[in-house]
Amino acid sequence: MTKISFNEMKNTVKQAFLNAGLHEKQADICAQIHTETSCDGIFSHGLNRVARFVDYVNKGWVDINAAPERVKSLASLEIYDGHRGIGITNALFATERAVELAKQYGVGIVGMRNTTHWMRGGTYGWKAAQQGYAAVCWTNTESCMPAWGAKNTRLGNNPFVMAVPLHEGAMVLDMAMSQYAYGKLQVTRLKGEKLPFPGGYDKEGNLTDEPGPN
Amino acid sequence: MTKISFNEMKNTVKQAFLNAGLHEKQADICAQIHTETSCDGIFSHGLNRVARFVDYVNKGWVDINAAPERVKSLASLEIYDGHRGIGITNALFATERAVELAKQYGVGIVGMRNTTHWMRGGTYGWKAAQQGYAAVCWTNTESCMPAWGAKNTRLGNNPFVMAVPLHEGAMVLDMAMSQYAYGKLQVTRLKGEKLPFPGGYDKEGNLTDEPGPN
Repeated sequence: MTKISFNEMKNTVKQAFLNAGLHEKQADICAQIHTETSCDGIFSHGLNRVARFVDYVNKGWVDINAAPERVKSLASLEIYDGHRGIGITNALFATERAVELAKQYGVGIVGMRNTTHWMRGGTYGWKAAQQGYAAVCWTNTESCMPAWGAKNTRLGNNPFVMAVPLHEGAMVLDMAMSQYAYGKLQVTRLKGEKLPFPGGYDKEGNLTDEPGPN
Repeated sequence: MTKISFNEMKNTVKQAFLNAGLHEKQADICAQIHTETSCDGIFSHGLNRVARFVDYVNKGWVDINAAPERVKSLASLEIYDGHRGIGITNALFATERAVELAKQYGVGIVGMRNTTHWMRGGTYGWKAAQQGYAAVCWTNTESCMPAWGAKNTRLGNNPFVMAVPLHEGAMVLDMAMSQYAYGKLQVTRLKGEKLPFPGGYDKEGNLTDEPGPN
C-alpha cells in the first residue's frame, strides 16, 4: 500500500480545483475538507467526490463565482440565496453566520436556498462545535427514497447532523435518512462487495443487498 | 346519548379542580383545556385524565402552589425549573415565554425541568400558531418503549409537536414515538376493544394487538 501525506494529497486536490477555475482560497478550503473527510475514513464523501465536483463545475452546474446573498433577516434567523455556488463554501458561510447570530442572540438559524452539494454534513457540525456551539444541520436531496410501504421514490435521504461540544473534542451525529447514504452504496459497489444488510428493494420489490447504481 | 354543553362540562371539571385546591385562574385554564381536548375528539388526554390529575394533586405529586422559576438565561434561550407545578400551566407559561423571546430575537427556546404531565402536547403548538409563530415542542416521558429489537423498555414515547400558522387556522402535528400513545391504549382498553394494528409485544415477545395495562 502506498502512503501519501496529508499535504501531498491536499495539494494535489487543490491543484485540480485551481485547474477547474476556483480561486486560491476556495480551492484551499475545498481541498482541505475533501482530504480531511477521506483521512477520517469517510471515503464516500472525500476524495472520490473530487472528480464529480470538477465535472459539475465544468458543466456549469456549480457557479464558482457566486456568493451567498441575504434575502431575509428576522433577527436571529436569516435566509440566504446560495446562487448555486460551491456547496462547501456556502455551507461554511451559513455555519459561521449561524455562530455569529448565536453569539448575539443565544441561538442562530440560517437557511439557504439554491446551494449545491455540501459533501460531508458532519463537517459543519464540527465547525460549530469547535467554537463551543451545539448545532443541528440538515439539507434536502433528490427524491431517492420511497415513503414507508411505497414503491416509488418521493422522499430525499436528507442528511441530518447534530453536534455538541465537549470539554475535549465534540460529539457529532451525521446520518442519512436511508439505510445507507448514496456515497456508501458507491463505495461498496466500487469494492465489488454486497451491503452488510439489505439497503433497499429491487425492481421486483424484494429486499436486496445489491449496492445498485445511483 | 346525553349531550352536555361545553360550558356545563367545563364548569363541572373546574369545580373538581377547585375542590382539589387549585386557585380560580388555574382551575379555569386547566378545565378549559381538558374540555377542549375532549371536544376535539382526543379522548385520551381530556376528561379521562381529570380524575388522575386530581389523584396526583391529592398525593402531592403535583404542587399546585409552585410557579416556574428561571434558572438560566442565554438571550433567546431560557431554562426554567417547573418545581413540579401543574403541567398545563407550566407548559402554557413556557409557550408564552418562547413567543415573547421570538418577538424579541426572531427565535425563542424555552426548556423546563421538573414539570408534570402537560396533557395534550398539541395544545401548545396551537397556542403558538394562533399568535402567528411556528413551534416545535416535546417532552420526555417514562421509559416505556424498547429500543429497536430490544426486549426491555428503556426509551420514552416522548410526544413530539410541530405547528405552523396558516392564513386561517394552523397545521399541527402531535404524535407519540410509540405505535400508540398511552392514552390511546387506555381508551381502547376501556372500550373493551383490540388495537387496529399490533402496538407492542406480549410477555413471550410476540406482537400483540391487546391494549395492555399501563
